Amino acid sequence: MGDSRGILIVVSGFSGAGKGTLMKALLKNYPEQYALSISATTRQPREGEVDGREYFFITKEEFEKMIAEGELIEYARYVENYYGTPRAYVEQKLEEGKDVILEIEIQGAMKVKTAFPETLLMFVTPPTAGELKRRLMGRGTEPEDVIDSRLRRAAEEADGMDQYDYLVVNDNVENCAEEMHGIIQGEHRRCFRNMEFMERIKQDLQRLKGE
Amino acid sequence: MGDSRGILIVVSGFSGAGKGTLMKALLKNYPEQYALSISATTRQPREGEVDGREYFFITKEEFEKMIAEGELIEYARYVENYYGTPRAYVEQKLEEGKDVILEIEIQGAMKVKTAFPETLLMFVTPPTAGELKRRLMGRGTEPEDVIDSRLRRAAEEADGMDQYDYLVVNDNVENCAEEMHGIIQGEHRRCFRNMEFMERIKQDLQRLKGE
Repeated sequence: MGDSRGILIVVSGFSGAGKGTLMKALLKNYPEQYALSISATTRQPREGEVDGREYFFITKEEFEKMIAEGELIEYARYVENYYGTPRAYVEQKLEEGKDVILEIEIQGAMKVKTAFPETLLMFVTPPTAGELKRRLMGRGTEPEDVIDSRLRRAAEEADGMDQYDYLVVNDNVENCAEEMHGIIQGEHRRCFRNMEFMERIKQDLQRLKGE
Repeated sequence: MGDSRGILIVVSGFSGAGKGTLMKALLKNYPEQYALSISATTRQPREGEVDGREYFFITKEEFEKMIAEGELIEYARYVENYYGTPRAYVEQKLEEGKDVILEIEIQGAMKVKTAFPETLLMFVTPPTAGELKRRLMGRGTEPEDVIDSRLRRAAEEADGMDQYDYLVVNDNVENCAEEMHGIIQGEHRRCFRNMEFMERIKQDLQRLKGE
């Protein structure tokens, strides 16, 4: 059964919630099902980063051409640099039936949801507010302004949580990755993702009634 | 984490899709998690039916008193008899944190959804339109009017499928029960079912920011 197109999945969450590790676990455990979208950016690669793995590293001119030609699903400018999600790769993988994961911030998530209303939005959180606090405060040795900026950022992220579809608690990476996978499997059974199947059944029943 | 109230779940589906067997498998495999709502009816018990197991068998006067006093979540009249879902049992089990399953028809399902917007609606279908056809047509030995009435009913049910949240394919009872269980587990992670948890995190972050 089922319509064969993949699901576009946005994963956001508090910093330190372990999103990157979760994504790696999902891709490792289900390489046939998932594809991870790779962002394009104009910032310089850091040591160890590989073009086409962490990011597509492109020039400002190339980036602005992609914006102008509608080749980005969403993009944002942080400090001096652009970050964005190239459309072609995402579309291609969805067509192939893969569920495509974008790991992006809330502002980008909302833009993607507007452009693709069937996007599945997941928010990753540590198991308790106390644990979140510990992760944000660190060992208490960071400068006060670093802690302040983390807290402000987390409070902003928390305000946006309601906009997500699912809240995923990362207490243990393998368990949490399995939980995310379970949620995504369930989402494939959503009625609005199975319109072709339902239409086929309706038409067959109408035909039978007429016979 | 998580808010502790259970989820109200409505299960509907084509006749012959195996809803009853699926419910039994869910309750057998996860007796701590699920409770099955038992309908009240004014019809006479059939052979082998036990009061409080298949139905609560009550009189017309008792049923109409329950209607008048708002003690039914939904009810309907078929032929000469009333059928309805008593509110008290459902509320009690939800409070206890159990997920309560109602196996009812689409009209009842829509009434429940209106009264309780957070209700989860699942529709059970055979794996293909061809298989549905075989189940509806039987061995071709039934009278034509029986087949006709089944087809009309199935076509009506199919028209309502879009109103459900999930479409569940019953190819194999144990697999399908596991799939339903997975969907329900996922639903517990929906943001709107975890408002208390999210509120707590927001408040904690606001407090930390102010310190």
